[in-house]
Amino acid sequence: MSDEAPLDGNPADTHEAIMMATFVALRKHGYPGISIQRIADESDLTKSTFYHHFDGKDDILLSFVEYMRDYFERGYRIESTGDPVGDLDAFVTVSLGEYPAAEGTPDADARLSTYLELRAQAIQNPAFQSEFTELSAALVENLTEIIETGVKQGVFAVDDPETMAEYLVTTIEGINLQQTTRTDDPRSMLHKELETYIERTVLVDGVGF
Amino acid sequence: MSDEAPLDGNPADTHEAIMMATFVALRKHGYPGISIQRIADESDLTKSTFYHHFDGKDDILLSFVEYMRDYFERGYRIESTGDPVGDLDAFVTVSLGEYPAAEGTPDADARLSTYLELRAQAIQNPAFQSEFTELSAALVENLTEIIETGVKQGVFAVDDPETMAEYLVTTIEGINLQQTTRTDDPRSMLHKELETYIERTVLVDGVGF
Repeated sequence: MSDEAPLDGNPADTHEAIMMATFVALRKHGYPGISIQRIADESDLTKSTFYHHFDGKDDILLSFVEYMRDYFERGYRIESTGDPVGDLDAFVTVSLGEYPAAEGTPDADARLSTYLELRAQAIQNPAFQSEFTELSAALVENLTEIIETGVKQGVFAVDDPETMAEYLVTTIEGINLQQTTRTDDPRSMLHKELETYIERTVLVDGVGF
Repeated sequence: MSDEAPLDGNPADTHEAIMMATFVALRKHGYPGISIQRIADESDLTKSTFYHHFDGKDDILLSFVEYMRDYFERGYRIESTGDPVGDLDAFVTVSLGEYPAAEGTPDADARLSTYLELRAQAIQNPAFQSEFTELSAALVENLTEIIETGVKQGVFAVDDPETMAEYLVTTIEGINLQQTTRTDDPRSMLHKELETYIERTVLVDGVGF
């Protein structure tokens, strides 16, 4: 995780203060309940400051999606440690939100929930769709690199690292969707099954995960 | 697919007419843009008829989620044909929306898109969350039966059919989420990878999918 990940700590400028207020307002009211007034209520800024920076609610929300894409691209990126088995485990664990939040920052579930709420808005919003297509591509690229390193080191047996990365990212998103929209907390059961899948189809025999 | 699946054909009564108008309005305006006026605009009914049947917008939308849950539970249910390999293939194909729509009915992508938009609303809506938890359980139960039949017939090698069903349903939802929120049409690539997974971890050696 990057130390400079947004949504964490103190905002650097007015734009970031507006983004952080938007995040809090989305958590409180949900996407359909969002308004400029409700975003302003979560900041020390006046509504006129908002209109100075943005054309209106839709403009703020698109900026927030860009901000969130950047957050996930940088904050969820796993830099190579030279140990692809550990890097793959870290990628899965971080993507499933299974890490402790730093003090004073929103927890991983809050971030994932808001991310999925906005991602579902992309179904009808072409501008959001472009952002999330880019985000998926960045996650897949990061995971492809990890898998390629493992193949080179002889610990992974994967014919097509990019397709495998696409499939794993898709399954992880499915787990996050189930976890955030069901009452029965299925994440750890599904995470365990994903690990079994990785052991069977990614790792060469004898490598532990 | 059931012949009596809702969202298809002519509404049986006023309640169903309101549900069908809600579906059309959701397709046109998206969840955040929905209003009773906009639902009424998609029907031959007056706004006062709506208030006679429902307490307001939130009540209509919760009824629509119940209606949609029932639609998917009944309409997407695969009845056993005695051939679990074919039934599993049918379950996957139908769940991914890869079947032709009957004439005059919404296509599968329109249904899946609206389903996912509403499912994401469950993140912040406990009443929706209960409905979608039930729907997931029904889909998992149907798929568990198919897998158990395959194990009994000796064509599937699965230790824990229910966990496998949970995992497959989760992956399918992940594919549907990627397909509806990305611009690059990843479904067939991901469907193919899911088939490879099924061949490797569900089917016994020598059984084709």
